[in-house]
Amino acid sequence: MNFELIHTDERSHARAGVITTDHGTILTPIFMPVGTVASVKAVHQRELRDDIKAQIILGNTYHLYLRPGLDILHKAGGLHKFNGWERPILTDSGGFQVFSLSDRRKLTEEGAHFRSHIDGSKHLFTPENVVDTQRIIGSDIMMALDECTPGDADYDYAKKSLALTRRWLDRGWKHFCETEGLYGYRQTFFPIVQGCVYRDLRTEAAKHVADLGADGNAIGGLAVGEPTEKMYEMIEVVNDILPQDKPRYLMGVGTPANILEGIERGVDMFDCVMPTRNGRNGMLFTRNGIMNMRNKKWADDFSPIDPEGTSYVDTCYSKAYLRHLFISEEILAMQIASIHNLAFYVWLTQEARRQILAGTFKPWKDEMVRRVTTRL
Amino acid sequence: MNFELIHTDERSHARAGVITTDHGTILTPIFMPVGTVASVKAVHQRELRDDIKAQIILGNTYHLYLRPGLDILHKAGGLHKFNGWERPILTDSGGFQVFSLSDRRKLTEEGAHFRSHIDGSKHLFTPENVVDTQRIIGSDIMMALDECTPGDADYDYAKKSLALTRRWLDRGWKHFCETEGLYGYRQTFFPIVQGCVYRDLRTEAAKHVADLGADGNAIGGLAVGEPTEKMYEMIEVVNDILPQDKPRYLMGVGTPANILEGIERGVDMFDCVMPTRNGRNGMLFTRNGIMNMRNKKWADDFSPIDPEGTSYVDTCYSKAYLRHLFISEEILAMQIASIHNLAFYVWLTQEARRQILAGTFKPWKDEMVRRVTTRL
Ligand SMILES: [Zn+2]
Ligand SMILES: [Zn+2]
Repeated sequence: MNFELIHTDERSHARAGVITTDHGTILTPIFMPVGTVASVKAVHQRELRDDIKAQIILGNTYHLYLRPGLDILHKAGGLHKFNGWERPILTDSGGFQVFSLSDRRKLTEEGAHFRSHIDGSKHLFTPENVVDTQRIIGSDIMMALDECTPGDADYDYAKKSLALTRRWLDRGWKHFCETEGLYGYRQTFFPIVQGCVYRDLRTEAAKHVADLGADGNAIGGLAVGEPTEKMYEMIEVVNDILPQDKPRYLMGVGTPANILEGIERGVDMFDCVMPTRNGRNGMLFTRNGIMNMRNKKWADDFSPIDPEGTSYVDTCYSKAYLRHLFISEEILAMQIASIHNLAFYVWLTQEARRQILAGTFKPWKDEMVRRVTTRL
Repeated sequence: MNFELIHTDERSHARAGVITTDHGTILTPIFMPVGTVASVKAVHQRELRDDIKAQIILGNTYHLYLRPGLDILHKAGGLHKFNGWERPILTDSGGFQVFSLSDRRKLTEEGAHFRSHIDGSKHLFTPENVVDTQRIIGSDIMMALDECTPGDADYDYAKKSLALTRRWLDRGWKHFCETEGLYGYRQTFFPIVQGCVYRDLRTEAAKHVADLGADGNAIGGLAVGEPTEKMYEMIEVVNDILPQDKPRYLMGVGTPANILEGIERGVDMFDCVMPTRNGRNGMLFTRNGIMNMRNKKWADDFSPIDPEGTSYVDTCYSKAYLRHLFISEEILAMQIASIHNLAFYVWLTQEARRQILAGTFKPWKDEMVRRVTTRL
């Protein structure tokens, strides 16, 4: 993997760049749709490529490990071959999902022991075996195993947790460097900066991560319950330390406003389940604000879903029709909302890129934050 | 509406024709996907048109009457405008759904009284008001209100039921002739032949229907519990009486084999929820037989879903991937199966048409019936 920094905004830390992988290039800043179990929910691969214009998608190692399982993924020749998505794929390490299992998991020095949410069977993720697993999945970008500390963790817990994450990172990085991809193309490994909401812990973690010299770096443990201003502060602390010439990935964030604030602070890559999950519940994100499609006010509004939208669903279906589909619990409602929201998120990051290159990012971003947080 | 009979097979009653409506032409024999509540479940309108190549779809008056309701449909300018489907639409009368409510409905001379399955509210469908309702929906082809007699009804019940259906038909036809469409294009009205499995009742009903001189005629009350051979026999009885120069629509039938047998007996139009409903449960119909996609045997079969399939999903996704999506309960599984099955059903009727025109229908049909009933 290679990253070329094309331009940095003069009035902010916002950056435009190009990531090159063996499965194609990615123009940053970029939003990456989440394809949990080898499928971006309710979206065809053709729609991802042609309508949403996704340049890279995510896969969840935890889910893929359980279903279809490593045997099938290996026989298929990796996830790209399995699900027919030929562009880049990033996988998380599975850690975040395991920690969400709460009473079904236990952390030790060795790794994360857990029971499957499907059949209760016992499993262990270690810093080394999640690298092996991501070798089998064949993601272009794999992530280190870390502990995602809750946003309200006290200092002592956060410090202890960060120490474990650091030891796991060193083990994972070593194992990554000692192993090779299985399918003839390059894979890369991103370490993750943790440290909760504590400046000194984030600083220490960012320095350690920066010193590894990985192809790219991630910021984890944000948007997990801490105040939004704390999140922005931590991004600033970390990005002042992470190398300029490597892409920065803010994990699991967030609302359109969060993404714009992240871009302003020098983040290059984003992922989040909001556009799909909230979309399936009837929430549409647009450049003019948020719409709850179940709202009665849309019942006889026959205008297009989003006249300024970027995907074909925005103009070929009306608000009244989409509301009807949600009220009637038709699957098509979820399909339309997912395409719309993902296309909007990808557009938002690509438009930010155009504004950065044009030198107009800051005023555009301030106006957009105001608009995207409006309730329609 | 106009029907042109192009060719009748020399060795069977199979026919190739062209129906012309103000929303476009339909090449018969044709399969019509069912769009219950203004949406063909899990399928985008673009996919219906370009991938499935649907020429006409169905709407269910009962469902549309309840949601979005006549007020919204009227304000929208009819169902075509509401759901964005610009090709022909046929609606049933709502009778079939009302009769399925069993303990929530009561038939009187006046019409069918029922309670909504959604909120329990009371409603009445009469032969006249279902015409008015279908005027508001704006379907190109509307259906008469009838009683769909169960397949195991005794002779006395069937005879009494048919008499009511006949009186309702005369009222509905009269009301249709006295009223006009609301949106500037032509609508037509199909009467329905009932009579259960009794030759004399079917004969009497078919004669009465034929005498009306409608643009097209339907055969109802089949595939509702009677033996399959009885269904084929009744189709033969009725089609020997219905006019040659009008299209014949066999309502709610059926499997691919049922459709081929229907075509052989002179049926021109078909609809059924099987391709979508069974598809959502993992059953795929192909020209080589039926596949249960949940079956373990597909787990590591990375070949395309259906190498001889006619829609793009057949070759862009593998059997193993589709099985994984079903096992993981991903929405995309239902989307893929629905597109595949509908495309197959439409292809089956259009291929039958080509074979009829080529004079090769009979041997092709015999071979196809053998193939489509195979379990893969
Ligand atoms: Zn700074
Ligand atoms: Zn005959």
